Parts: sequence; C-alpha cells; structure tokens
Amino acid sequence: MAHKPNNRVSSRDVARVAGVSQATVSRVFTPGKQVSEDKRKRVLDAAQELNYKPSVIARSLIQNSTKIIGIVLQKFENLFYIRALDLFSQKLQSLGYSVMLFDINGSHAVEDTLPIALQYQVDGVIITSATLSSPLVEECSRFETPVVLFNRVNESGSVHSVCTDNRNAGREIADYLIKKGHKKIAYIAGESGSSTNRYREEGFVSALEEKGLSLFSRGEGDFEYPSGLEAARAMLSTPEKPTAVFCSSDYMAMALLDVARTEFALRVPEDLSVVGFDNIPMAGWPNYNLTTYIQYTEKLVDNTINVLLEALEDPGMPIAHQFLQGRLLERGTVKEIT
Amino acid sequence: MAHKPNNRVSSRDVARVAGVSQATVSRVFTPGKQVSEDKRKRVLDAAQELNYKPSVIARSLIQNSTKIIGIVLQKFENLFYIRALDLFSQKLQSLGYSVMLFDINGSHAVEDTLPIALQYQVDGVIITSATLSSPLVEECSRFETPVVLFNRVNESGSVHSVCTDNRNAGREIADYLIKKGHKKIAYIAGESGSSTNRYREEGFVSALEEKGLSLFSRGEGDFEYPSGLEAARAMLSTPEKPTAVFCSSDYMAMALLDVARTEFALRVPEDLSVVGFDNIPMAGWPNYNLTTYIQYTEKLVDNTINVLLEALEDPGMPIAHQFLQGRLLERGTVKEIT
Repeated sequence: MAHKPNNRVSSRDVARVAGVSQATVSRVFTPGKQVSEDKRKRVLDAAQELNYKPSVIARSLIQNSTKIIGIVLQKFENLFYIRALDLFSQKLQSLGYSVMLFDINGSHAVEDTLPIALQYQVDGVIITSATLSSPLVEECSRFETPVVLFNRVNESGSVHSVCTDNRNAGREIADYLIKKGHKKIAYIAGESGSSTNRYREEGFVSALEEKGLSLFSRGEGDFEYPSGLEAARAMLSTPEKPTAVFCSSDYMAMALLDVARTEFALRVPEDLSVVGFDNIPMAGWPNYNLTTYIQYTEKLVDNTINVLLEALEDPGMPIAHQFLQGRLLERGTVKEIT
Repeated sequence: MAHKPNNRVSSRDVARVAGVSQATVSRVFTPGKQVSEDKRKRVLDAAQELNYKPSVIARSLIQNSTKIIGIVLQKFENLFYIRALDLFSQKLQSLGYSVMLFDINGSHAVEDTLPIALQYQVDGVIITSATLSSPLVEECSRFETPVVLFNRVNESGSVHSVCTDNRNAGREIADYLIKKGHKKIAYIAGESGSSTNRYREEGFVSALEEKGLSLFSRGEGDFEYPSGLEAARAMLSTPEKPTAVFCSSDYMAMALLDVARTEFALRVPEDLSVVGFDNIPMAGWPNYNLTTYIQYTEKLVDNTINVLLEALEDPGMPIAHQFLQGRLLERGTVKEIT
C-alpha cells in the first residue's frame, strides 16, 4: 500500500550537514538517549533537508535486537489494566524500548496475535489478560522470545509471572469483615476461569471456614461494571440479605453500591457493607468512597519489567513467579456490627 | 542487551518441513491473513523445530512498508480516548497493520516521540492528544510519513484531522438548556489550550448570546475528574448558584454531580441541572444517569483510519478536515424550569 522512496542517505550525510558527529545523529534517533535541544534541532533539520529516514531496520540487522516489547492487552474497559499499560509504556520508553500493542479485545485471540509479535521480532512479550488458557500459555513459552504474565499465574508454571498474592488478599478481607462483626458474608466473583478470581475466592472462603463461617451467598460476574449490576440485583432480591459483600473488583463493587442505593433503597454502609478490589481511581471518588484492597500497580509493573529484562539477559534463567502483597484500604463502605 | 542467534532458516525450509507451500508460511506470519487451524499448527510446529523466526524486517526491506501505524496517546485516565485506542487497534489489526504505542503521558513529549516513530519507519501516525502546540504539529507534517489528528484540529490546517463538530455541539447544548427554561447557565471548561474546549465554549456562549443571555458563571478544569471537583466546589460556593451547568466532559460533570450531592446537599436535577460531554460508559451508570452529548467514537475512529489509508495511497492528497456531528442524549440530569 505505502511505497516509500528508497532511502540512500546515510547518517554520515546527515551528520555532515548538521555539523555534528555521526554518534549524535544516532542518539537523536535512539529511544531513551539524551541530546541537547540545539543539536536535536540541527539533526532533524538536516534529516528533513536530505529526506533521511533513520532505520531501526538497518540497526536491528546488526544488533539482533529490535528494542520492541509487545504488550498483549484485553481489558480496555478496566482502568486497572489501562493504568498498567500507561506505566509499562512510559517505563519501557525510558529504558529505550518501544511498545507494540496487541489488542485481543473482541475477536482477536492470542493464538493469532503471538505469531505477529514474533514476526516483528519483538525482544519480549508481556501478557495482561485474564482469560489465557493454559495450553495457550504453553504455546507462548515454546517460542524463544521471553514472555512474562502480568497479574496472573499459569497453572503449569512454565511462564514467568508477576502477580498480587490474591489468596492472601482474600484471607485478609475475610478476617477484616469477621473482625467487624459480620457473619452473613457474601462474595461476588469475577471471571470464574481466571486465576485472579480463583485465588481471591479460595483465600476468602478458607479464612471464613477457619472461623466457622461459610459463604452466605455468592454471585458471579466478569469483573466489569455491567456484570456487577446483574449479580447485585440477583443477590439483593433474596428475602434474607448479607450484611457484607466482598466484590472481586472495584467495578463490581461500585455496581453493587449503585444497585443497593438506587434500586433497593439500602444505605451503605448502614444497611450493607461493601469491599472492592484493585483501588482504581474511581474507588476514591466521594460518591463511592469505597473500602477496597490496593493492588500496587506500579510495583507490579516494575517487577514485570525487571523479570523481562533479566530473561533477555539470561534466556536460560529459571522461571520466576512473584507474588506481591497488597493492602486493605479502609474508606467509608464498611460498618462495624455490634 | 538481547542478542539473538542469527537466523539462517528460511520460510522455504519451514514450508518443506510443514508440508505446505511457502505462501502458506508467509500467510501464517502476516497480520490479517486467514489460515486453516491445521495448517497454522503445522507451520508453527515446524517453525519451532527449526528455530525459524519470520522476519518482518526482511519483508519490509522489499516492500518498503512496515505495516506499522504509530498511535500517540496522552490521556490514559480518560475512557473516551482508551475506547478509541481499543477501536484503532482492533480495526488496524484487522486491516493487517500492527500498532506501535507512543505514550506521551508524564514526561514524554511528542518532540521526543516522533523521531522514534520515524525510526521504526511506521507507515503512518495517528495523534490523539489535546495539548499539541501548533509548532509541534508543523514539525510532524514536515516528515513524509502521513499524520492524522484524532478529535482535534490544528490551527494552521496543515495536518489531516477528524473531529466532532464541537462548535455546533456547544450551540445545541445551549439551545437545549434555554428551551428547558434555564436562564442562569454556567460552563465548566476543559483544558483552555485545547481546540476541543475552545470550539465547544465558543458555540455554547454564542448561542446563549443570540438569545440575549450571557454565561452566568464559568469554571475551568482539564477535562478530568479531579479538576472537576475543584471547579464544582468553587462554582457552588457562591451565594447565587446557576440552575444549569454544561461541563465540557463527562468526567467533570460526574465530579459536579458528586460535589453537588455530597458536599452541598443539592439534588440533581431538582436543584441543579447538569449536562456532560462524550457519553463514556460511566455516564450511563444508574448513579449518574447523565444527560450528555454523544461523540460517535467508532465513526471518528473509522474516518481517521480512512483518511490515513487514503494518505498512504496518495501522499499528495489535499489536507482533509472532517467535522462529524454528535447528538444530545437526554437522561436524568436536566429538569425543565417553568
């Protein structure tokens, strides 16, 4: 479709016209390198004059590295993942990498996406998607390009992963609600196939059971707001209601708050206590003021990048599985029952 | 950092081992091409066995096209732009392109970003950022790679752009509030340097003036929620309050709703009418149920891609400026005053 003119101008020509060294020309066109504003301008002017197009292609043939990291993302509606994408992009750019985005929302599957990432000879891939099947994860690991899973674990353990310790998080939230005197405690689950939801729920339920309680009721969504509305309506339509609900994401907790107040005339926290998960920005908005569980996104992102960089340095390194601790953040949606 | 082994295996070798044609191997590694599941698997198995890494690099040297589109994005907190990013990525992937993401949130400026995009010889660039200065836009257009501005216009008119007709949108909203009987009508502005805010405000104020009204009061934010909180507090702290407020984004309108209810005990719409702009998903949540102005994101995205594809086909095409009409969506936050 686009046919660009062949470019026979070299960086040496640009350096001559700009009156700088060839190394300076190279620095201007290398991600993450500092160049003075004056020199940058002279190089760009000379590049324009000569119609010079610097070529990562030529460089990557020499260096065997494209300095591209592929990021696979599915959840474009969820600000937790969008914040992570922003942090990944900024940090990788600062490290001299560029980001190629592979969108598997909608009909695009990871099966179709990974061969394309490899075709561009990306140096590494970060996968941030809740619905990777284990066979798929295996398929990723077969390629030589290092892959790190962000905020999820694969069961077989054959791919690097960096994740919040969801099982412990679930336990902490259960202990907190019990300490606040609640006995009728419910759970609204996220996507049942996801490791994040499974571990949160396992930790939550097992901590309840250790205190002689069982789950009062259980709803199921897919982490997103609309699914939370449905789950909340079903849960609150029963004659006897829970006094406290842990929702596996802030979005579902906000949906529960909206449904409780708008459709069931329940006051939060007077009539119903609610705990979310993630601590997305909206959880702190005055209308929600949601008690939730902080996932430390920036730390998760930093560690994911570090694992990837280590794997690039040492392709034979042992598979890393990092579980980071989060923290319960008390705001205004849980009441003590006496 | 990453030094990959030189790859001397060709697609012919892979085709031989997989028992398929060389064209099939090529299709498996070409974005947007359909291949049967069986053949795809055989090719990937053979590629793994031979340690074959298909090279977009080799192909791009022949075709003079990398099939990469650069997307420059700043507003990662704003779901209007995130939805656009998702649509851009999905649609470009379906067309056989890959997306390189350039994140200019935080400290990364477009000045630093564009040379990198060019270094990767992207076929084209889409810029979705509210704060591009006109000189910068000029600098973009100096390069031969086509650039299209999404949801903004540059004053000099030298770069393609696709944008909602914000001036007309502002007029429609003013006419609507006047028709509903309001006379004390206020405005909370977005980023004052942005073309989107300027045109919305110009249309809004001029339509008021044509009906003999002037702006009752004016606040200023930056389109995002926290700035809306501040602007709303200042606006509602005055002894005489407006009866209706048009906010230049849904996020600021939601902040105004939260502040009005939580901090000033005002009922919406009984005591205060509020209109937003964008129609992001949250605007429809029961708690907000916000009357707003729809920007047709998908149509804006489609047209932006079409302009870019046309510019790739015909680099000499005249500069395109498209203004698309939106539509006022009545929900529950505006009351008729009688």
